[in-house]
Amino acid sequence: MSLLLADIVAARARIAPHIRRTPVLTHEILDAAAGAHLFFKCENLQAAGAFKSRGACNAVFALTDAEAAHGVVTHSSGNHGAAVARAAQRRGIPGWIVMPHHAPLAKVRNVERYGGRVVFCAPTLAAREAECARLMAETGAVLVHPFDDYRVMAGQGTAALELLEDAPELDLLLCPVGGGGLLSGTAVAAKGLRPGIRVIGVEPELGDDVARSFRARERVSIPTPATIADGLRTNVTGEKNLPLILAHVDDIVTVSEDAIVAAMREIWETLKIVIEPSCAVPYAAIRTGKVDVRGKRVGIILTGGNVDLDKLPWQK
Amino acid sequence: MSLLLADIVAARARIAPHIRRTPVLTHEILDAAAGAHLFFKCENLQAAGAFKSRGACNAVFALTDAEAAHGVVTHSSGNHGAAVARAAQRRGIPGWIVMPHHAPLAKVRNVERYGGRVVFCAPTLAAREAECARLMAETGAVLVHPFDDYRVMAGQGTAALELLEDAPELDLLLCPVGGGGLLSGTAVAAKGLRPGIRVIGVEPELGDDVARSFRARERVSIPTPATIADGLRTNVTGEKNLPLILAHVDDIVTVSEDAIVAAMREIWETLKIVIEPSCAVPYAAIRTGKVDVRGKRVGIILTGGNVDLDKLPWQK
Repeated sequence: MSLLLADIVAARARIAPHIRRTPVLTHEILDAAAGAHLFFKCENLQAAGAFKSRGACNAVFALTDAEAAHGVVTHSSGNHGAAVARAAQRRGIPGWIVMPHHAPLAKVRNVERYGGRVVFCAPTLAAREAECARLMAETGAVLVHPFDDYRVMAGQGTAALELLEDAPELDLLLCPVGGGGLLSGTAVAAKGLRPGIRVIGVEPELGDDVARSFRARERVSIPTPATIADGLRTNVTGEKNLPLILAHVDDIVTVSEDAIVAAMREIWETLKIVIEPSCAVPYAAIRTGKVDVRGKRVGIILTGGNVDLDKLPWQK
Repeated sequence: MSLLLADIVAARARIAPHIRRTPVLTHEILDAAAGAHLFFKCENLQAAGAFKSRGACNAVFALTDAEAAHGVVTHSSGNHGAAVARAAQRRGIPGWIVMPHHAPLAKVRNVERYGGRVVFCAPTLAAREAECARLMAETGAVLVHPFDDYRVMAGQGTAALELLEDAPELDLLLCPVGGGGLLSGTAVAAKGLRPGIRVIGVEPELGDDVARSFRARERVSIPTPATIADGLRTNVTGEKNLPLILAHVDDIVTVSEDAIVAAMREIWETLKIVIEPSCAVPYAAIRTGKVDVRGKRVGIILTGGNVDLDKLPWQK
């Protein structure tokens, strides 16, 4: 089994009642600075504040009633957790969310807002997985993996479907890459609809496991990186994402922490939207010339807006 | 002469190539908290970051070539200035913007970004008007008044036209009131399209000249208020706005400074958009029960997003 455009089209119909069709923003000043036409798909304005609602709704609503009966469980540094909590709430089943102790408070609160039952654990993949396994054994809940799940990837790919309806002539599509679910879904959707499009994943230099894996053509793991882009600290640890990325993605580039903060601020100031650091990573690649966009029509998936408003990264 | 729905419809066609059709956002959590359906018209996402682009474009593009030949001049605490600068730049004529010394730096920069020529003056209406008169005499530029101008009001009213297309069944429409241009245009548009709608203006308690004028049914002036809502420090000083407000607006209510800051933060956190304090004033009236919205469909015009990101009002 793999992931096909048809799966993403089916996901779109399944999740339509539960998610928002987000706007695509453009800006004359950002276009002039880049020498390109930039189309920002605003998944920060998505339900629960991130694209993760797409994959979570697809996974939760694809369950049979018997499968769903005892609820769902997931592990997440934040946005996927809120999305699963919300999807479970809409389906009327319990949703347990395993979060690392260091998760930003704004993200913990966001999970709780949607009725999620937060269970803290140590900030390692092993601890997250052990805690999920314990909850599944105790409750009978089923796992909604944050990225290593074709139903989740299919849901994430629906953002690219919508973007390509609103801006059909894109030459290039950029998205951030953490665990790889968004990039996998996006690449399958974009290449399926528009074979000539280039799809590029962007990640923080500090957490460049996907760039390394892409060059090595096999999984390279790194310790949990200390990047400010807290949504991208995950390694591509699953079995399903890297083959899709190797098959459909044209390149992976990396950006510095300073470039991420500067890009984040510029988007707040110019587009007037709240985005989290992870979300600024693709635009950071444009601003610093890591991706050549001159004269092109470029889609950028802005992934989420869950950020601690008491402490912004450009404030000392 | 007065302001009619037909003027607003004509303005819409005139400015269409120069402004953005802004999205209308909704949010399940805000709706649940209010017990209502809230429709936020996001003029913070408008060109140059505020609804002011609508009125400025209508006024600047309505000029004959002879009238426009020597440029335009205006006085503004910020957003109208940026909007006039941008409109002048698009028409290829000079735009002089008279701003008070205390204008937020973010707003000064925003004027300069769009090619505006900033001239500082003392923060009083008399100083602003004297400086405008001097510039007009020296350059031959024509005045684009921030609110006491039917072409400007007609432009501002186009936001309500669009909102009522996207959310035609509104029971109630709220907007902030400073000089009264937005409220006048909004009320004429809304009552023209949907006579049964209620239109309510909201202003800071500290700057309640319109509430006082509305009760007295004649102009009441107050000293420049120290409200955090810097876009609403203006008195309704013109001749044209108050008669329109008295004819078409159902009520004017006021909100405290604390309520403005809390509402602003909640909109950032939930809708994931950057709004300035002035813009949070109508939602503050909902949150504090100053307007009864229960069970209603309520439109809210979010007016602008030009704010100093180094210093947010909830940060000590």
